[in-house]
Amino acid sequence: MATTQANNRRDTLAKRYLETRELSNTLIAPLSAEDACVQSMPDASPAKWHIAHTTWFFETFLLKSCESNYRPFHEAFEFLYNSYYNGVGAQYSRPDRGLITRPSLDDILGYRQYVDARMGDLIETLDAGDPAIDLIELGINHEQQHQELLLMDIKHLFSLNPLYPSYASGAPAISAPEPHALGWRTHSEGIGEFGSAGSSFCFDNETPVHKHYLEAFEIADRVVTNGEFLAFIDDGGYQSPLLWLSDGWSVVNEHSWLAPLYWRQVDGVWHEFSLRGLHPLDLSAPVCHVSFYEADAFARWSRARLPSEYEWERVAASRTLNGNFLDLSCLVPKPASIEGSYRQLFGDVWEWTHSAYTPYPGFKTAPGAVGEYNGKFMSNQMVLRGGCCVTPPGHTRVTYRNFFYPHNRWQFAGIRLARDLAR
Amino acid sequence: MATTQANNRRDTLAKRYLETRELSNTLIAPLSAEDACVQSMPDASPAKWHIAHTTWFFETFLLKSCESNYRPFHEAFEFLYNSYYNGVGAQYSRPDRGLITRPSLDDILGYRQYVDARMGDLIETLDAGDPAIDLIELGINHEQQHQELLLMDIKHLFSLNPLYPSYASGAPAISAPEPHALGWRTHSEGIGEFGSAGSSFCFDNETPVHKHYLEAFEIADRVVTNGEFLAFIDDGGYQSPLLWLSDGWSVVNEHSWLAPLYWRQVDGVWHEFSLRGLHPLDLSAPVCHVSFYEADAFARWSRARLPSEYEWERVAASRTLNGNFLDLSCLVPKPASIEGSYRQLFGDVWEWTHSAYTPYPGFKTAPGAVGEYNGKFMSNQMVLRGGCCVTPPGHTRVTYRNFFYPHNRWQFAGIRLARDLAR
Amino acid sequence: MATTQANNRRDTLAKRYLETRELSNTLIAPLSAEDACVQSMPDASPAKWHIAHTTWFFETFLLKSCESNYRPFHEAFEFLYNSYYNGVGAQYSRPDRGLITRPSLDDILGYRQYVDARMGDLIETLDAGDPAIDLIELGINHEQQHQELLLMDIKHLFSLNPLYPSYASGAPAISAPEPHALGWRTHSEGIGEFGSAGSSFCFDNETPVHKHYLEAFEIADRVVTNGEFLAFIDDGGYQSPLLWLSDGWSVVNEHSWLAPLYWRQVDGVWHEFSLRGLHPLDLSAPVCHVSFYEADAFARWSRARLPSEYEWERVAASRTLNGNFLDLSCLVPKPASIEGSYRQLFGDVWEWTHSAYTPYPGFKTAPGAVGEYNGKFMSNQMVLRGGCCVTPPGHTRVTYRNFFYPHNRWQFAGIRLARDLAR
Amino acid sequence: MATTQANNRRDTLAKRYLETRELSNTLIAPLSAEDACVQSMPDASPAKWHIAHTTWFFETFLLKSCESNYRPFHEAFEFLYNSYYNGVGAQYSRPDRGLITRPSLDDILGYRQYVDARMGDLIETLDAGDPAIDLIELGINHEQQHQELLLMDIKHLFSLNPLYPSYASGAPAISAPEPHALGWRTHSEGIGEFGSAGSSFCFDNETPVHKHYLEAFEIADRVVTNGEFLAFIDDGGYQSPLLWLSDGWSVVNEHSWLAPLYWRQVDGVWHEFSLRGLHPLDLSAPVCHVSFYEADAFARWSRARLPSEYEWERVAASRTLNGNFLDLSCLVPKPASIEGSYRQLFGDVWEWTHSAYTPYPGFKTAPGAVGEYNGKFMSNQMVLRGGCCVTPPGHTRVTYRNFFYPHNRWQFAGIRLARDLAR
Repeated sequence: MATTQANNRRDTLAKRYLETRELSNTLIAPLSAEDACVQSMPDASPAKWHIAHTTWFFETFLLKSCESNYRPFHEAFEFLYNSYYNGVGAQYSRPDRGLITRPSLDDILGYRQYVDARMGDLIETLDAGDPAIDLIELGINHEQQHQELLLMDIKHLFSLNPLYPSYASGAPAISAPEPHALGWRTHSEGIGEFGSAGSSFCFDNETPVHKHYLEAFEIADRVVTNGEFLAFIDDGGYQSPLLWLSDGWSVVNEHSWLAPLYWRQVDGVWHEFSLRGLHPLDLSAPVCHVSFYEADAFARWSRARLPSEYEWERVAASRTLNGNFLDLSCLVPKPASIEGSYRQLFGDVWEWTHSAYTPYPGFKTAPGAVGEYNGKFMSNQMVLRGGCCVTPPGHTRVTYRNFFYPHNRWQFAGIRLARDLAR
Repeated sequence: MATTQANNRRDTLAKRYLETRELSNTLIAPLSAEDACVQSMPDASPAKWHIAHTTWFFETFLLKSCESNYRPFHEAFEFLYNSYYNGVGAQYSRPDRGLITRPSLDDILGYRQYVDARMGDLIETLDAGDPAIDLIELGINHEQQHQELLLMDIKHLFSLNPLYPSYASGAPAISAPEPHALGWRTHSEGIGEFGSAGSSFCFDNETPVHKHYLEAFEIADRVVTNGEFLAFIDDGGYQSPLLWLSDGWSVVNEHSWLAPLYWRQVDGVWHEFSLRGLHPLDLSAPVCHVSFYEADAFARWSRARLPSEYEWERVAASRTLNGNFLDLSCLVPKPASIEGSYRQLFGDVWEWTHSAYTPYPGFKTAPGAVGEYNGKFMSNQMVLRGGCCVTPPGHTRVTYRNFFYPHNRWQFAGIRLARDLAR
Repeated sequence: MATTQANNRRDTLAKRYLETRELSNTLIAPLSAEDACVQSMPDASPAKWHIAHTTWFFETFLLKSCESNYRPFHEAFEFLYNSYYNGVGAQYSRPDRGLITRPSLDDILGYRQYVDARMGDLIETLDAGDPAIDLIELGINHEQQHQELLLMDIKHLFSLNPLYPSYASGAPAISAPEPHALGWRTHSEGIGEFGSAGSSFCFDNETPVHKHYLEAFEIADRVVTNGEFLAFIDDGGYQSPLLWLSDGWSVVNEHSWLAPLYWRQVDGVWHEFSLRGLHPLDLSAPVCHVSFYEADAFARWSRARLPSEYEWERVAASRTLNGNFLDLSCLVPKPASIEGSYRQLFGDVWEWTHSAYTPYPGFKTAPGAVGEYNGKFMSNQMVLRGGCCVTPPGHTRVTYRNFFYPHNRWQFAGIRLARDLAR
Repeated sequence: MATTQANNRRDTLAKRYLETRELSNTLIAPLSAEDACVQSMPDASPAKWHIAHTTWFFETFLLKSCESNYRPFHEAFEFLYNSYYNGVGAQYSRPDRGLITRPSLDDILGYRQYVDARMGDLIETLDAGDPAIDLIELGINHEQQHQELLLMDIKHLFSLNPLYPSYASGAPAISAPEPHALGWRTHSEGIGEFGSAGSSFCFDNETPVHKHYLEAFEIADRVVTNGEFLAFIDDGGYQSPLLWLSDGWSVVNEHSWLAPLYWRQVDGVWHEFSLRGLHPLDLSAPVCHVSFYEADAFARWSRARLPSEYEWERVAASRTLNGNFLDLSCLVPKPASIEGSYRQLFGDVWEWTHSAYTPYPGFKTAPGAVGEYNGKFMSNQMVLRGGCCVTPPGHTRVTYRNFFYPHNRWQFAGIRLARDLAR
């Protein structure tokens, strides 16, 4: 009986492992070896690096420790494809990842096959309580994160090419110009429990469950649209220092920001670059690729504010986890649907919160090198919630904490407004 | 009767105004015109600038709005000594403040007298409820902040001079090598009220009062000593990436940090530079001039953590606000006293918390240009609590939130450890 | 009769055009599309860019002006593959050339075929005196320069890959440890003519012929070896400020230079990275990939100096233009032969002179956009003479002036010593 | 008899020593201690540093070697006021010279008196052939160079102050708008001798005398005026890449140059900042504070070129060395006089040549630390000739080679045009 359950869990794991690995292969299919090799900025990585590094993760944390006498695919890969795990050893310089033209993309696909074959064998042998199971689960979720990063990074790379290549063909249909009106939902004050109890998979940064007190608040029932953000631009938002955080105002001026990252004016008409190329801006679609600073300034201009991550989680807690997630037939955020008391909570765009990314009360890092997974990044970044249109389905959840620096814009980040209730 | 009260409050205000202004004059007395003119780094300002800008504050926010036909002391000063108030107008470039050799120090002292005379006249005329009273109170507290900054900045400037000049003569006495042992105090979980109700003066960032839930925690009954921090150094703390936040590890390596900001090795013996010159390191005195990153790494090495600002405030709430504050006969942090259930909570060194400097729930900025005072800095910085040995007496309080970037070290910042209680 | 000569010249030109174009194709044959796409530093360009830009040169300066109704291969290429010709129009950002993953390498090979076909047609139609002939000649020489740059850039790219890939297989044989002893040749003082009369092809920077007076001097009969340079290193050359130009000493310290660009210590043994991979340092081979600063410091340490470009040209004027030029079976500088009154004057390594790259007396730039070819670079650079082991055969000549910034090291640059004669 | 001559020379030397030292004191008299302490950019030094360093020169190279048991004025000064002599020892960081508020200006004036007294004693004892005499002569010339630098640096500092303080009172009178027309003078080709024979004092970089062949050339009989340069600006000179050297075009765009360094538009009217404050631009006065790049671009726009340093020297060789040199009643370059076959050759503005600053044939550096005086700067800089309105009288000469980087603008540098003669 227990054996059957173990077998079932093992089979499920094997299936999810293979599906996840296969999705990565699908994602790079539209890319040439050249596309997959180049790094467009230090924050981004080559697609080839992503699919090598996710393989490295399984090789390093599973095969090297579980397989006796495991022979690495290539001795240098431990160094070359280690992202940031000092506990494993030294790392090849991050801003130089794009210089590694050899091993080739084909070599890395061979690396994937080599590791997948051995991982298949390994999963076969696992007992129900084997700690390797949790590490494989972590590796699957880790690869999903890199699938999203891979699409973010390719979008950034292609955006710098004056030919504006498309990752996928076919510009999205433009919606009717008027989005469903924005409504506000009220939440009363009180104490609640937040974070994950860890009964199903979560990252360490979502733990432990803990109490937090919330004041009453209002929150918008959909995210901000391109049309609404354009009104901010047209009202001189990028030229009004009083709307901005001081650090944000410095960044705006240093980089001469005038619009979201991928907006372009073509003959006086606003366009947006997406994974489907350059096309006219859809005013009803969510504004996307804004920094925390821009989200915060827009909210101030709107006489509102960003929600805290606790507020967001309270709102999301009772909702069904449906949304516009990674789907090769879409790949762009979509306008809000007409119905539903909350729209776009999950998927479409990550939603900036005004919560700094800090450890939850009682947070502990895992022992060993995987303890470096999340904890060491808990400074200077802000939390985003909800997932986006390039987040693999099933990857995000109510307690999921994404995080980026307040100046970052290349992730699919948008805005949901909140407000204090008069007291 | 009401008139008498108003007169009393007015007299008190006049007295406090004069005392505060006089303290600034006292603080620059040991400085030559050259000392007062130079800027040692973009984060710092010349002493002359501090005493001009604090005067500008009263001229701009009081005299210009309250005095009809006020004639400015000098037309260019509105531009020259505006720190960051975009609502007032453009500002002279901050990193270039040290280039302003003219007006001279004597000119600025004349500016102070000019403004003080008119401020004296203005205070005479104020009725009890005049909103100018709150602005004068703000101006006094503003000048106190700059008094601390002035000493921080002079210390930094003198530290870069190979002759190590002293601001005040006489090295501090070295304490007995063994500090009173560190004890831990336990606090139980529960909900509480935090922040200031604003009945007496506070900065806007301390408001509004709000509820917050705290888990049970332990906190150290004194701050970390130089001797304890030296053990961290000797154990290779600055060479162990696993102890550090990722951003901190980058900063450590970029700047080749090996010790707190003002530690110097002289013939193999650790010395510390203070406002009293270069002298042997006092192992019992509080470690000071560490960044948030160093505080955090030290705490991790100690199998502890930094407190949150809420934890600190709960601990401090019931304590008497005594401590080693600005006193020209001291000017250095002192070793912990032997007695007392908490030592050094107030004064000696500002204590890093792991709380990011974000707005309290329900926070509103003040209308007008003074609304830029605090709110626009609420990103990327961390909260420090308690005051230090160069904070003017009476300036800090239980709810006071100081803030610096996690890499800043030139403020008098130290470390108090905290721990989770097992759950 | 005249027609026959014109036909002959045309046929020769067609043949040289095709051979040159074919050599570029041969040079990229060992490269993958990934190798050809990446840019390792702002000074370098992707191999794909080199073969596109050399094609652009013919398209822009020949086909667009000579062919009526010429239809460009791709509209965006005028912008994308313009290097620095402001007279032609705007240019895609140089440091970002490596971001252009599309057009693909295959697309660019198609571009080459398209242009080559039309160029073949064009050459057919040219009369003897057609000014296009000179432009085609320039284009051929231009492409030869980019052939050398392509190999320099690939070497640099591969050197940053910890796997040290080889462009060509087979490490060079190590020579006998003792090179033929260095001899000195004396030249008497006098006035002479220098530069090119322009009867056969030369670049504009070699003109006009002009008189120059030279003092008597001595010059070495071979270039400096790795072994000799190693003695400089072992004598603390990189740590002795008195040996260096002031700017050079700054660069040495800023970049922590300790040896020539491609020297690597492997387990305490000096190796050199070449187009044939990483292999033990050949002490008899010429030192290569040193900056002007290193060449100058080495000369000072040797109680000698670098020659002027006039001294070099006088020495070279009467010599046969043989040497170790681009040859896919070699690709590395070779030790000096035993015989010959001068060795390695041509080929092996470019020889730094102490002459700044300035216009010759009477220099005029050509009219039109090709006037930007050389003249606008005549500041801050130093002249090198003689050609190297990756210079295409037939490309260099006695009057040829190569030029690089004094800190540049990725070109194949070496050292020939000179000395004043006692007066 | 010989004794009398020695005494005379000694007396002359003593007199010139005292006069030179006195001039430095005169130059700083208008400065406050604050003015004298601050450093406006890394290229500049504080006035206090200049007067300390010139004193250090005599202390280090004369008193320390000639006086037995010399007791230094202050032990730390050897380090603190060493500019760049690695042969003497380590140096305090150059960009941080402005941080040294202590020693005070008064302390440094005391240092000057201390050294002057001992130097007076030393000169008394010198025999005619004592090598110290040459070093004192060098020290005098060295101090004259720093007198010019001091005025350059103060001008730069004051220019960054929005109050535009004046070093000397009284704006210069504006000349009649039309300058005397520019004429051209022709020189025939031929070989000549250049450089200094060293019979009277010169710097090492002017030696040895050597032959050089010159082509025939034309040269302007006065320097370029502000009015002529304004026509270049109004013709879009700063926006036309084809007029510029490639490196110059980069600098123009990086720094957004639109006019010479000290030109300012006030309500649409061009003004110039000088040591006499901000005043309307004198169109007849020489253009000043242009970089080599601007001088070169202006010359190209004028269908002319800059002269070589040899051409300049040939022209100047037979002229009387009169001109507008340092004179506290002037301090600005003056319009050309109406008469004279050459005007402004000496004084007014240094004249950019297109000659790179490289060693003359046969150049040898002096032995010892003073060998670092000039030779190590012989890369990346361009030669200027003739002296300017802040060069001390008697300091410059026909063979004098001044040198600055091509992007430098804070020296008093102007433009004299030259042209090739048709051949």
